[in-house]
Amino acid sequence: MAPAGGLGARKGILERLDAGEVVVGDGSFLITLEKRGYVKAGLWPPEAVIEHPSAVRQLHMEFLRAGANVMQTFTFSASEDNMESKWEDVNAAACDLAREVAVKGDALVAGGICQTSIYKYHKDEARIKKLFRLQLEVFARENVDFLIAEYFEHVEEAVWAVEVLKEFGKPVAVTMCTGPEGDMHDMTPGECAVKLVEAGADIVGVNCRFGPWTSLQTMKLMKEGLMAAGLQAHLMVQALGFHTPDCGKGGFVDLPEYPFGLEPRVATRWDIQKYAREAYNLGVRYIGGCCGFGPYHIRAIAEELAPERGFLPPASEKHGSWGSGLDMHTKPWIRARARREYWENLLPASGRPLCPSLSKPDV
Amino acid sequence: MAPAGGLGARKGILERLDAGEVVVGDGSFLITLEKRGYVKAGLWPPEAVIEHPSAVRQLHMEFLRAGANVMQTFTFSASEDNMESKWEDVNAAACDLAREVAVKGDALVAGGICQTSIYKYHKDEARIKKLFRLQLEVFARENVDFLIAEYFEHVEEAVWAVEVLKEFGKPVAVTMCTGPEGDMHDMTPGECAVKLVEAGADIVGVNCRFGPWTSLQTMKLMKEGLMAAGLQAHLMVQALGFHTPDCGKGGFVDLPEYPFGLEPRVATRWDIQKYAREAYNLGVRYIGGCCGFGPYHIRAIAEELAPERGFLPPASEKHGSWGSGLDMHTKPWIRARARREYWENLLPASGRPLCPSLSKPDV
Amino acid sequence: MAPAGGLGARKGILERLDAGEVVVGDGSFLITLEKRGYVKAGLWPPEAVIEHPSAVRQLHMEFLRAGANVMQTFTFSASEDNMESKWEDVNAAACDLAREVAVKGDALVAGGICQTSIYKYHKDEARIKKLFRLQLEVFARENVDFLIAEYFEHVEEAVWAVEVLKEFGKPVAVTMCTGPEGDMHDMTPGECAVKLVEAGADIVGVNCRFGPWTSLQTMKLMKEGLMAAGLQAHLMVQALGFHTPDCGKGGFVDLPEYPFGLEPRVATRWDIQKYAREAYNLGVRYIGGCCGFGPYHIRAIAEELAPERGFLPPASEKHGSWGSGLDMHTKPWIRARARREYWENLLPASGRPLCPSLSKPDV
Amino acid sequence: MAPAGGLGARKGILERLDAGEVVVGDGSFLITLEKRGYVKAGLWPPEAVIEHPSAVRQLHMEFLRAGANVMQTFTFSASEDNMESKWEDVNAAACDLAREVAVKGDALVAGGICQTSIYKYHKDEARIKKLFRLQLEVFARENVDFLIAEYFEHVEEAVWAVEVLKEFGKPVAVTMCTGPEGDMHDMTPGECAVKLVEAGADIVGVNCRFGPWTSLQTMKLMKEGLMAAGLQAHLMVQALGFHTPDCGKGGFVDLPEYPFGLEPRVATRWDIQKYAREAYNLGVRYIGGCCGFGPYHIRAIAEELAPERGFLPPASEKHGSWGSGLDMHTKPWIRARARREYWENLLPASGRPLCPSLSKPDV
Repeated sequence: MAPAGGLGARKGILERLDAGEVVVGDGSFLITLEKRGYVKAGLWPPEAVIEHPSAVRQLHMEFLRAGANVMQTFTFSASEDNMESKWEDVNAAACDLAREVAVKGDALVAGGICQTSIYKYHKDEARIKKLFRLQLEVFARENVDFLIAEYFEHVEEAVWAVEVLKEFGKPVAVTMCTGPEGDMHDMTPGECAVKLVEAGADIVGVNCRFGPWTSLQTMKLMKEGLMAAGLQAHLMVQALGFHTPDCGKGGFVDLPEYPFGLEPRVATRWDIQKYAREAYNLGVRYIGGCCGFGPYHIRAIAEELAPERGFLPPASEKHGSWGSGLDMHTKPWIRARARREYWENLLPASGRPLCPSLSKPDV
Repeated sequence: MAPAGGLGARKGILERLDAGEVVVGDGSFLITLEKRGYVKAGLWPPEAVIEHPSAVRQLHMEFLRAGANVMQTFTFSASEDNMESKWEDVNAAACDLAREVAVKGDALVAGGICQTSIYKYHKDEARIKKLFRLQLEVFARENVDFLIAEYFEHVEEAVWAVEVLKEFGKPVAVTMCTGPEGDMHDMTPGECAVKLVEAGADIVGVNCRFGPWTSLQTMKLMKEGLMAAGLQAHLMVQALGFHTPDCGKGGFVDLPEYPFGLEPRVATRWDIQKYAREAYNLGVRYIGGCCGFGPYHIRAIAEELAPERGFLPPASEKHGSWGSGLDMHTKPWIRARARREYWENLLPASGRPLCPSLSKPDV
Repeated sequence: MAPAGGLGARKGILERLDAGEVVVGDGSFLITLEKRGYVKAGLWPPEAVIEHPSAVRQLHMEFLRAGANVMQTFTFSASEDNMESKWEDVNAAACDLAREVAVKGDALVAGGICQTSIYKYHKDEARIKKLFRLQLEVFARENVDFLIAEYFEHVEEAVWAVEVLKEFGKPVAVTMCTGPEGDMHDMTPGECAVKLVEAGADIVGVNCRFGPWTSLQTMKLMKEGLMAAGLQAHLMVQALGFHTPDCGKGGFVDLPEYPFGLEPRVATRWDIQKYAREAYNLGVRYIGGCCGFGPYHIRAIAEELAPERGFLPPASEKHGSWGSGLDMHTKPWIRARARREYWENLLPASGRPLCPSLSKPDV
Repeated sequence: MAPAGGLGARKGILERLDAGEVVVGDGSFLITLEKRGYVKAGLWPPEAVIEHPSAVRQLHMEFLRAGANVMQTFTFSASEDNMESKWEDVNAAACDLAREVAVKGDALVAGGICQTSIYKYHKDEARIKKLFRLQLEVFARENVDFLIAEYFEHVEEAVWAVEVLKEFGKPVAVTMCTGPEGDMHDMTPGECAVKLVEAGADIVGVNCRFGPWTSLQTMKLMKEGLMAAGLQAHLMVQALGFHTPDCGKGGFVDLPEYPFGLEPRVATRWDIQKYAREAYNLGVRYIGGCCGFGPYHIRAIAEELAPERGFLPPASEKHGSWGSGLDMHTKPWIRARARREYWENLLPASGRPLCPSLSKPDV
């Protein structure tokens, strides 16, 4: 198997999805770069794109090697309401970094925006749309390949985002950060999906806030909602790389471990292979990750779906499928782990007998 | 507080330790770069130093920013017995990368060797010493600042390593990868430490194979052994960043989760602050990490011991001490987490109610 | 506070409930006597009433002392379809034992029937009603105070039971062994409750199969169903004394631990106090237990609701409220446990670090 | 297989042990009767023997049916220092109850004493020995078959007890309530065993305070201590029926769950079968239980060792070996549990995902 694509042959996001291809998304920037020392938790500003571009470039590179077909600009919350005057430089630099890496493989550049800090206080459509439009102008100048509006708690604001992004004529993907219980105004996932597609979104789905299994439940509801409404759209999922069966409606930010004690919840690569398979079986074709997804999690998606795609990602040269790289270990009981059944059935211990297995969300 | 040091003022490892300073070690290369897609688990060869130098450089850079005072050459198992002809280039390139980053901060370059693949089959002192000497010749040419012999299961082979390294006149640190039960020939930690100091080691301790608390137990036994023998040496600990209370004598490699299901065991930054404090209280002054230690874990050591050292590491600009960066969060229950008591007492859940908290080692 | 009642003053079940009194039910016979050596798991026949009457009498006595106001005849599955010729003697002997103990306190005798072994194969109304009627004839002869039809998986069969029992003119209570997902024919708890009340039941609720919290969820749905239908009935709950958050629709029998590995799931007395309080707050006034409920769990109900009832049960002479009996312990750290906050907030460990906290049901 | 014994044939305790027979002890009175409503936690006085003799008789009967060869008088702490004037009546009544039940099967009556409340304040040998002698006079009058001195935290006091009990010419068993770390004066288990045998004990071992596995570790150390000293004695173990891997030196009373939150720690019958087998393999021939051991746990000992003994206990008529009674269950997945491998390998869940698996002892 050899990677598809190559510079001249690059197909657009809708060409790929319309052809039934799997598009592998990228993973976590904020939480990953926080642990590497380049992002500060709390407001999580993505100013590393100008302060420490090598660190951001390296992470893009790792996701590309892992098989990602999308380099999303690291512009989360890089809007005027959060970053003051710096916002424009950050957006431009992020586009340059994403493009610089994307051209080294078969990846597209997606300009990314997210919910504003304003909506929860003032549902001021004009002001919010203006904020979206400002970011979009940079993306247009930088000629990104498509647009992602992500991390919306309220479908109304997401609809506004889609309406703005559609003005520019590129494909638009939009993801809510809501779970099976629906958005913060009690719109069900099915209702959200319908509104977003009616607003013009080409790709709809969820990202962040909920772990792999919960996010797939939400996707199932979105899909059913669209079918019931006789609508069609491409589906996209970018779940957390954390297990969160104990989340309430607000997702992982309400768990007591957020954001500095989430380690025991990190998914294994085998968890992510199951997630990729289930997403695929559900009809989702744009499959990536959000907070907690490291490069090896993205690689796990690409490896699980390699039979369907026909090739492995570059970084698989450093990974034996299903642990096969252990077959030369000197200890026989470790060699015995070089097989699929072993890892597929392992129930990994936390090494923390004084800790519970679930938490109560704060709200 | 401002970082000490500066290019001209760089002090040697023994100068620092003799003066009572804390030396912060670096963290995990193999496991960290495996997850980033640059190292293959199993034999874990460090060939990334020539294949993907930017990825290795970036990781060095992250540890430097996190406060590490040592850039250990990424030469683990890069000996002729494991790597054939490539070994020499790998060692040289690794030294260059370490030096390139070290000069950007207050860090020293340490040339690193480890146990051979031969000892367990043939206790051939001459052949093994020759392997060590070959690597050492590169380190000498590259003029590293000191030497680390690490990851020894048998003190006899570690003694041979120390004897070779001492020939070159630079300070020598040596660490066993054994736990409180002692080495694979049933030498107690105290006996190991005594033999190593008698062989000329300037710094002794443990690295890898066991989690923070277990490693500190071993250090306590080493210290007591040295005291009982009337010997003195600097103490060094570079524990795993994984919780392993259920390890047997062989350490974490015998746990069923090794190496692809260890996620739930990863230490939080708060665990590492406790580890740094306990290590300090025990009299250990060279404190770093091994497998599983990311840049933020190294930063946690530097932050915990900032009062003693008088300065914070560069990457602390991206970390509010004890979660203080959360104090501006819009959700009041998350703001309430911006304090030491919260994180110090949190018992983080695994989100895995079907998994046990401990495992049985395979042997 | 002194026990209410006394022989002459004994009030009927409906008199009590109509007056707003709390009626404390009894607890587990089958599982308790299995552990004492008098009942065999599997078919669970209650033949101990004739083989070992002292053992059954003693258990009735313990529930009476614990505060139970109902001595239910130990006639579970003692129907002709399960027990052949022995069934009549068993029913008569069970009534005698229940009465013998009931008169020693303020308790009523309730004749108990349950679902037949036939219904799932043949929905033969005539034959099934005949089985119910046979048992009822014994109860009538023995002049029990009221009747309980319990442990029905299908509301249709429960309705038949109510119809038969009502023929005899005594109050009838009926409980399903279903959870929030409803009965085995997908009737919701609300629909079940409505059908049962329409069939003439005076008291409706649930028993067995699900733990305290799940059973209260089902009760809430039953209550809402009745309210929506404009119906009224007294509510009754007799949950398992086991924690079963991981149950599927079939309840605890489908959990891998049923019936010989349920120990880690046994509720503490403090869990049961919370259950009693929540049941009371929900409007349930007949509160008892099913499998896993020992005498001390029944006492916990009576103690929690002592403020409402005005008296403590006899066995409270052997129990200091909220652990107050520990206040004279010689060890100060154990004395420190003699308070409500301690026990109310304790998260008890299982002492089983190799076991998970939840299981997957078999179906 | 048929029960051995019969009234005329009753053999003494030493006759049995000398002949290599297994002696099955009885189980928990205090904790069991507390849950049944007849004993108050804290000081745990055994006054139920006079207040509620039927309840005590019934529990003796259950242990007899379960296979116990010893009816220990329920006289724990029934010494003058704890019970004032009532002590003499309690001791006499307890002997009568034990004898009344013992003669119904193949059981011996053992008079039981335990450590005094005085020793920890005043190591007054004369006064303490006088207390032991007072109780012994009742046992002599009642003509018990042998004597058990149990629950000693300090071997010195246990030696005094043995010295007094030996004055009366009947066999003497003695058990410490200490764990592998030894007694409260830091005497190792081996040293304790040697002192007790030298003082004249015929049978030595441990009871209470520690769970099955920990108690067997202590027994191993006692056995090794006796062997090293060239001494011989019969070995006896009566462990807790609770899992306590997290105990400190003081045992389960120091765990935060003691005594009202121990439920999740209760051993299954399968745990106890393993305990019985391991005890037997270690050479222990007097095997019973202490707090937390119900009748079915005693039956599990008798069933596990039935091949060696040649017969099953009476209560096994109500228990299919290894769950075989489930083979007629209507649900096939429950029938599938009617086999040894199922129960032997089951890792039972606690149903408590918010609870840890281990606790920190208070001291």
